[in-house]
Amino acid sequence: MTIKFDNVYINQTSTVTGPYEAKGRLNKFFDKSYDDLYFGMKTFEQAETKSINDAIDILFRKANINKFQIDAFIGGDLSNQIAASNYAMEKINTPFIGIYAACSTSTLGLILGANLINSGADKIVTFTSSHNNAAEKQFRYPIEYGGPKPKTTTFTSTGAAAALLSSKKEGIKIESGTIGKVVNLDIKDVYNMGAVMAPAAADTIYSHLQDTGRTIDYYDLVLTGDLGIYGMNILKDFMLNSYAIELNKYNDTGVMLYDRDKQPVYAGASGPVCAPLVTYGYIFEQMKQKKLKKVLLVATGALMNTTMVNQKLTIPAISHAISLEVSK
Amino acid sequence: MTIKFDNVYINQTSTVTGPYEAKGRLNKFFDKSYDDLYFGMKTFEQAETKSINDAIDILFRKANINKFQIDAFIGGDLSNQIAASNYAMEKINTPFIGIYAACSTSTLGLILGANLINSGADKIVTFTSSHNNAAEKQFRYPIEYGGPKPKTTTFTSTGAAAALLSSKKEGIKIESGTIGKVVNLDIKDVYNMGAVMAPAAADTIYSHLQDTGRTIDYYDLVLTGDLGIYGMNILKDFMLNSYAIELNKYNDTGVMLYDRDKQPVYAGASGPVCAPLVTYGYIFEQMKQKKLKKVLLVATGALMNTTMVNQKLTIPAISHAISLEVSK
Repeated sequence: MTIKFDNVYINQTSTVTGPYEAKGRLNKFFDKSYDDLYFGMKTFEQAETKSINDAIDILFRKANINKFQIDAFIGGDLSNQIAASNYAMEKINTPFIGIYAACSTSTLGLILGANLINSGADKIVTFTSSHNNAAEKQFRYPIEYGGPKPKTTTFTSTGAAAALLSSKKEGIKIESGTIGKVVNLDIKDVYNMGAVMAPAAADTIYSHLQDTGRTIDYYDLVLTGDLGIYGMNILKDFMLNSYAIELNKYNDTGVMLYDRDKQPVYAGASGPVCAPLVTYGYIFEQMKQKKLKKVLLVATGALMNTTMVNQKLTIPAISHAISLEVSK
Repeated sequence: MTIKFDNVYINQTSTVTGPYEAKGRLNKFFDKSYDDLYFGMKTFEQAETKSINDAIDILFRKANINKFQIDAFIGGDLSNQIAASNYAMEKINTPFIGIYAACSTSTLGLILGANLINSGADKIVTFTSSHNNAAEKQFRYPIEYGGPKPKTTTFTSTGAAAALLSSKKEGIKIESGTIGKVVNLDIKDVYNMGAVMAPAAADTIYSHLQDTGRTIDYYDLVLTGDLGIYGMNILKDFMLNSYAIELNKYNDTGVMLYDRDKQPVYAGASGPVCAPLVTYGYIFEQMKQKKLKKVLLVATGALMNTTMVNQKLTIPAISHAISLEVSK
C-alpha cells in the first residue's frame, strides 16, 4: 500500500547518540552525544527514555516550538511494550500513538504522521530510539557477559531521533510512503538479522515501484535501514534474481553510521535509531545541497521475539519505505 | 487530539474466544469459541496467533471478501514486540501497521484505520488479541504456579477480534476518535490495573468532550475498556471530582464480559480483546436495534513493562476513545 502525500514536510529533526556513534563517521551531524551509556540515569532502559526526551527538547528548541503546538506524537522502540517511548511520553502529556515495527519504526511513524498532516493535523512529531545495552540484554545476553559473536551480527545503535512534520513548505518533502508486509524466509539465526530483513526490504522496494509506476532509476539513492554489509549483498542479489532490478545507487545506514575499519561493530549498525541518525543529519544535508534530490528510505525491522525463537519459530521481518524529496 | 470522520463505517466484525469467555454472559454474541486454551496449537503464544488468523478468516467469510481486497491491516497485542500479531501477519502477506497501546489497542487501531479510509484507502482491517496464560506468564507468573491474587486483579481475556472498515454506509459509523495521552499517577501495584488506567480514561473522556464541544449526555453510553469493578468507581469519582462530570450512562466491558457471580475473575476481564469482544457483539447488536444510538468506547491500556516495574518505576497508562453511531 503506497500513500501519496501532496503537502507534507519534515521541517526539522534532532538526533542524540551514545559514545560509539560519536566515534563513527557521521559525528558532526549529530545534535548531542553522551560520553557514557547511562546518560546520567541509573539504568540503560532509563537512559533510552532520557535520549527520547532529549531529542524532543532539542527538536523543540531548533524549531522554536513547544509541546502545546503538537497535535500528536508517534513513536516506538525495541523495548518490550515500547516502554522507552511510553515513559518518555508520560513527561510530555500530549496525545501519543505507539507503534511497533522494530528497526523500521522511523519510516512507519513518518508515514502515519504524514497521513495525519495530509488529513488536517497541524504539527506531528515522530520519534524513535534504541540502546545497545538495553537491547542486547533483552534480546540476547547482557553485553557484560562478553560472549563472542559471528561476523554477521549487527551492533544495535544507541540514541534517539525526532522529526517535526507539518504542511509548511520547509525542509524535506515526504512525497509518498509504502507500508510493508510481514515476510518470513525461515531464518532462525538471531545473529544474522541482515538475512532476516533483506527479503522484507526487497518486497517493499518492489511494491513501491509497482504502486508508483516508477523504475529504480527514479531515485538518486535507495537507502536501507540496517541490513549491514552482508544483508546489503543479500538484498542486491535478491532484487536482481527475483525482480531483475539492479540496485546501483544504493547504500545502507547500518554500514554508514560507524567506522567499520576502526570500530568493533561486526556487519554494521542496527536499531530503530540507526536509519534516522544517518538520514536526518548526513543525508538531509546532502539533499539540502542538492547532491541528492530523490531518496527512497527503506527502514527494515526484524520482528524478533525471544519466546517465539525459543519455541523454534523462524523470525519474521517488515520494511516500510518513504520517498523523500528536496522541498523545492 | 480528536479527529472527525465523515464517512467511515465498521462494516463487519468477528470474534474468537477461549473457554472462559464462552462461559460468560455474552457467549451467544461470539463467532467462535475454543474448549481449551491451546486452540490446537503447541503453546499459548501460538494459540494467540491462531486466534488472530481465525478472527480474520471469519471476518473474510462474513464480509465475503479476501485479503487481496484489503489495503492494510492494523493490529497489536500484549506480547513483547506484538509477536502474536506479527506471526499472524506473516501468513497474510498484506501491508501491516503494528501498534502498541496495551488494552487500548482496539480503539487506537480503529482511529488510525478510519483516518486511512478518510484519506482514500478502500478497505482496512483492524484486529487485536490477548491470551490469559501467555499474558500472565509474560507479565507476572505462569498461572500454573497458582499464586493467590488480590481482589483488584483483573483477568486477562483470551481471544481475538477483527473489524472491517470502509466508506460503505453499512454497519456502525465511526464518527470521531480521540488519541489519548500517557498518564502516570504513580501506582506500582501490578495487581491493580483499574487504578492505573482510570486517570487515563478520565483524561481522554474529558479531552473528547472539550474537543467536540459536547456534554456527557450526548452519549447513550460511555463504555470503558477494562477498568474492572473497582476501576469503574475510581473513574466515576475522578470524573466528578476533577471535572464535575457525572458518569450515569456508563459501563465497563471488563465488568460485562464474564459472569462475575459464578466465574473466579476477581474485578473483571482485561486484555486488548476485552473491549472489542463485548462491543463487536453485544453492543453493536444493541445499536442495530436502536436501543443505543451513540456510544463512546474508551478502551484503556496499562503500559506495564516488567523491567521498569522491577526498577521501581510507576506504571503509565493510556486510553484512546472512539465515538460510534448507528449508520442511519
